[in-house]
Amino acid sequence: MNERNMVLHTDKYEINMMYAHWFHGTQNRKTVFDCYFRKIPFGNGFAVFAGLERIVHYLNQLQFDEETLDYLAQQEENYDPRFLQELREFRFTGDIYAVPEGTIVFPNEPLIRVEARVFEAQLIETALLNFMNYQTLIATKAARIRQVAPNDILLEFGSRRAQEADAAIWGARAAYISGFDATSNMKAGQMFGIPTKGTHAHSWVQDHENEEEAFEKFAEALPNQISLLVDTYNSLKSGVPNAIKVAKKLENKGVRLQSIRLDSGDLAYLSIEARKMLDQANLEYVKIVASNDLDENTILNLKAQGAKIDIWGVGTQLITAADNPALGGVYKLVAKEKNGELLPTIKISGNPEKITTPGLKTVYRIVNKQTNKVEADYIALVEETDVKNGEQIRLFDPIHTYIQKHVSNYQPIELLQPIFLKGRQVYRLPDLDSVRDYHKAQLKLFWPEYLRILNPEVFPVDLSQDVWNMKMNLINEYKAKQA
Amino acid sequence: MNERNMVLHTDKYEINMMYAHWFHGTQNRKTVFDCYFRKIPFGNGFAVFAGLERIVHYLNQLQFDEETLDYLAQQEENYDPRFLQELREFRFTGDIYAVPEGTIVFPNEPLIRVEARVFEAQLIETALLNFMNYQTLIATKAARIRQVAPNDILLEFGSRRAQEADAAIWGARAAYISGFDATSNMKAGQMFGIPTKGTHAHSWVQDHENEEEAFEKFAEALPNQISLLVDTYNSLKSGVPNAIKVAKKLENKGVRLQSIRLDSGDLAYLSIEARKMLDQANLEYVKIVASNDLDENTILNLKAQGAKIDIWGVGTQLITAADNPALGGVYKLVAKEKNGELLPTIKISGNPEKITTPGLKTVYRIVNKQTNKVEADYIALVEETDVKNGEQIRLFDPIHTYIQKHVSNYQPIELLQPIFLKGRQVYRLPDLDSVRDYHKAQLKLFWPEYLRILNPEVFPVDLSQDVWNMKMNLINEYKAKQA
Repeated sequence: MNERNMVLHTDKYEINMMYAHWFHGTQNRKTVFDCYFRKIPFGNGFAVFAGLERIVHYLNQLQFDEETLDYLAQQEENYDPRFLQELREFRFTGDIYAVPEGTIVFPNEPLIRVEARVFEAQLIETALLNFMNYQTLIATKAARIRQVAPNDILLEFGSRRAQEADAAIWGARAAYISGFDATSNMKAGQMFGIPTKGTHAHSWVQDHENEEEAFEKFAEALPNQISLLVDTYNSLKSGVPNAIKVAKKLENKGVRLQSIRLDSGDLAYLSIEARKMLDQANLEYVKIVASNDLDENTILNLKAQGAKIDIWGVGTQLITAADNPALGGVYKLVAKEKNGELLPTIKISGNPEKITTPGLKTVYRIVNKQTNKVEADYIALVEETDVKNGEQIRLFDPIHTYIQKHVSNYQPIELLQPIFLKGRQVYRLPDLDSVRDYHKAQLKLFWPEYLRILNPEVFPVDLSQDVWNMKMNLINEYKAKQA
Repeated sequence: MNERNMVLHTDKYEINMMYAHWFHGTQNRKTVFDCYFRKIPFGNGFAVFAGLERIVHYLNQLQFDEETLDYLAQQEENYDPRFLQELREFRFTGDIYAVPEGTIVFPNEPLIRVEARVFEAQLIETALLNFMNYQTLIATKAARIRQVAPNDILLEFGSRRAQEADAAIWGARAAYISGFDATSNMKAGQMFGIPTKGTHAHSWVQDHENEEEAFEKFAEALPNQISLLVDTYNSLKSGVPNAIKVAKKLENKGVRLQSIRLDSGDLAYLSIEARKMLDQANLEYVKIVASNDLDENTILNLKAQGAKIDIWGVGTQLITAADNPALGGVYKLVAKEKNGELLPTIKISGNPEKITTPGLKTVYRIVNKQTNKVEADYIALVEETDVKNGEQIRLFDPIHTYIQKHVSNYQPIELLQPIFLKGRQVYRLPDLDSVRDYHKAQLKLFWPEYLRILNPEVFPVDLSQDVWNMKMNLINEYKAKQA
C-alpha cells in the first residue's frame, strides 16, 4: 500500500510545542498520555474500538522527508535549522499500549496509552485521535445497526456520501468489524479483503429500451450475482413483475435470481407486496434488498411493520454517523518525567467531568467466573498487583463512592496490550476476520441490558483505590496552592 | 504528491455495469451524466461548489494496475479475462464540464457534466460524488460561518474530530475557499499553501512547574507567534493574569504577545472580562481567540451577547458539518447514444422532485446589467443560442410555470466550463487564492436576501422553454406507454 507521507497530518500547535521543548532542551523528557473519550455517541451503552491498524501503519512510516523539512523551514515561526535537523533524524521510539480493535469500550478508560519522549508524544496526538475517533464512531454505529438486525445481511453502501475517500474506505472496514457482511467500496475490498457487493444503478435501466430487456441483459452478463433494482419506473407495477418474468426465464436455464432491490417509497408496504408477488410466482428463494437512508431506527421500525426485507443496504446514516458525527476522543497528559522519575499529573477544570485521571494506568475487565459476564472495568496503576493476582477487590463508583461491592471469584482481562515497545512494533495485527470474531465474543461477555440501543444500563468503569487516592491528592494539592 | 491508486474507489455496481456493458458490446456507447444536488444543507440559501481539484487529480491518474486486475480476477462475479484486458488499457477519454470551485450554486443545476463512453462514465460516478459531496458541504458550512463573522479571523481547527485524514485535509481546503483564514492542519498547509496557525495544548502548561513558567518558556521559543492558552487551571483567576504578567515582561524585550485563547466555560462572559483585564494592563493589542465546539449559531449568539472575541477557532461542527453531515449529490443519466445520435433520457419517480431533467444542458447565470446582480440561473440546452446572444428570454418557475418574467438587458455567464476534452485536461486549475477571490466576487453578485443564514429567499433556477418541453414530452411519452 503506497501511503502518503502523513507526518504532517498534525496540528501546528504540536509542531510548535515540539519546537518549544527542543528550544529549552526538554524534548527528551518522558511523558505518558492517555487516549479516551468521555461520552458514548448515539445514546448507546458502549463503543467499539477501531483505528489501531491505521495507527500502526502511521507510526511505522513516521519520518520527515526533505520536502516536509523545506516546508517547515518557510513557516513564519522561523524555526531554528538545528530543530529541523533533529526532525530529519526523527523516528518513533516510544511505547504504545492499546486495546485490540473490536473491543467493547466505555467512557473514561484509556484506550491507547502513549509512553514516549514529549517530542514524539505531541507529534502523534492529532493523527491518533483522528483515526481512533472516526473509526470507533463508525464501528459503534454499525454495532447498533447489527443489534436490530441480528440475522439479516448488512451491506455498507455509503461511499458516495462519505466524508471524502478515507472515510469511505476506513469506514467500510470499521462497519465490517462490527458485523456488517460486505461493502460496496471496491478499494476497501482490495485493501482489507472485505467481501464486496452491488446491484446496478437506475442508469442501467434507463440505458436500455425497456426494463425487462435491461434486467435480462444484466442477468446474462452476471449469472452468479443477479440482483435487480426494481424502482426505476414503478416498483410494484413494473419492476417486480419484470424481475419475476426474468427470474422465470432464468429458471429455464438453471440460473437463479438472487435478489431484487427496493430503493425508494414505502419500504414496509413495498417489501410485503413484493414478497407476496415473488412467492406467488414460486420464487421464495429470491431475497429482498432494501436501501434508502436506512439506520437502526428505520430498520427497527420497518421490522415492527412486518417488512419482508432480508438484506439491508445502509449508506449515509452509517458512514457519516449522521445523528452524532464525531466521537470526542481526547489525549491527555497523565504523567511526566521529573529528575528521572515519572510523576502523575492532572488537568483541573471547572467542569468536574473534564478533570483528568492521573498516573500510569491500565484497564482490567473483571469477568465473573460463575456467570462468565463482565462485572465492571477496573482502572488501576500499572504497578498494582492485586488484580493481576486475582485477589479480592473493592469496586466502587468513582463519583458516588458509597456505591460499592467486593468481588473475588473473577478472571481479570488486561485490555491494554503492548503494540510498540521502544519504537518497535511488537503486536501482530490480527486479520480482519479474527477481529470480527473477537468483537462477537466480546459482546457475549456483557449482559444484554448494557447492549440495547435504547436507554441501556450504564456500565461501571471503576478506579482502584490507589488511582482514586492519587487523583484526590492532586486535586487537593492544586486547591491548596490556589488558596 | 504521492497519491494512492484510487481507481477502485468506486462501488461494485459500477464495475458490474461496466462488465455487463462490455459483455453485450455496448461499453463504447456515449452517455451524458449530470451531477447535482436536490437540497441545500443547513437551511442555507446557496451552496459553494468545491472538489474539482481533487476530481482533476483523480481523473488524470485513473488506471488499473496489475495488483488491481489480480484483485478483480478473484471476484465471485468471475469476470471474463478479456474484460480485465480491456481494463488494463483503460484511460479516461471523455469530456468533463464543471463549474469552477468557489462558485455559488443551487439545487437541481448541473455542477458537473460528464460526456463519456458509458464504460468510463459509470466507473467515475462514486469518486466524483464522494469528492464533490464532502468538499461542497464543508465549503458551504464555512460560508455560513463567514457570514456571521465577516470581519473576524476564522481558523479551521477540526483535524482530530474530522472523519479520517482526507476529510481533515480536503475539509481544511474547502473551508479556506469560503473565506477561512488559516487551518491548524500542517498537511493541508503543505499540500495547498494554506496559512497554518496554532497555539499550544493544556499539556504544555501541565508539563511545567506552573502556568507562568509555561507561558514564559513558550514565548521565549516562539517570539513571532505567541498565543497562550489560558484555561488549563482557571481562565480569569490564573490564565489571564499570568498571560498579562508575561506580556508585560515581553514588552520590556520589545516583543508583543499576539493573543490569548479561551477554550472552555462561558465564552461571552470570559472574553468580556479578559478584554477588560487586558485593556486595564494597556494590552489593547492582544487579541482574544475562542474555541470549543463553535459554529455559526454559537458565534452569532456570542456576538449578540457582546463577546469580545477577535479570532474564532472552529473545529468539529465545521469539519464534520455536524448539523447536516452529508450533501446528497446525485449523478443521473440525461442522454444516451442510439444509432449514433444522442437521445435525451429521463428517470421517472413517484416523488416529482426526483424526476430528472433530460438532455445535454448547460447553465447560464443571468446578470442584470443595470444592478450587476444575478436575476436567476437558467438551464438551457447546449444547442440553444438565444442566451449566448443576449436575446430576450422568458424566466419562468419550472413548478409554478405562471410565475414568469422577461429579461433582456443581461450578461449571461456560462457556469459549466470545459475541464477535460477527449480525456485531456484543458482547464488550468487556478491557485487557491484566486479561488477565494473568485468566491468573494461570486457573493457580491447576489442580493443579500439569498445569502442570509436564516430563512433565505429561494433563488430561482429556471429551465429554458426547450428543456421544459423536452422534460414534459418524455414524461408524457412514459405515461402513454404505461396506459
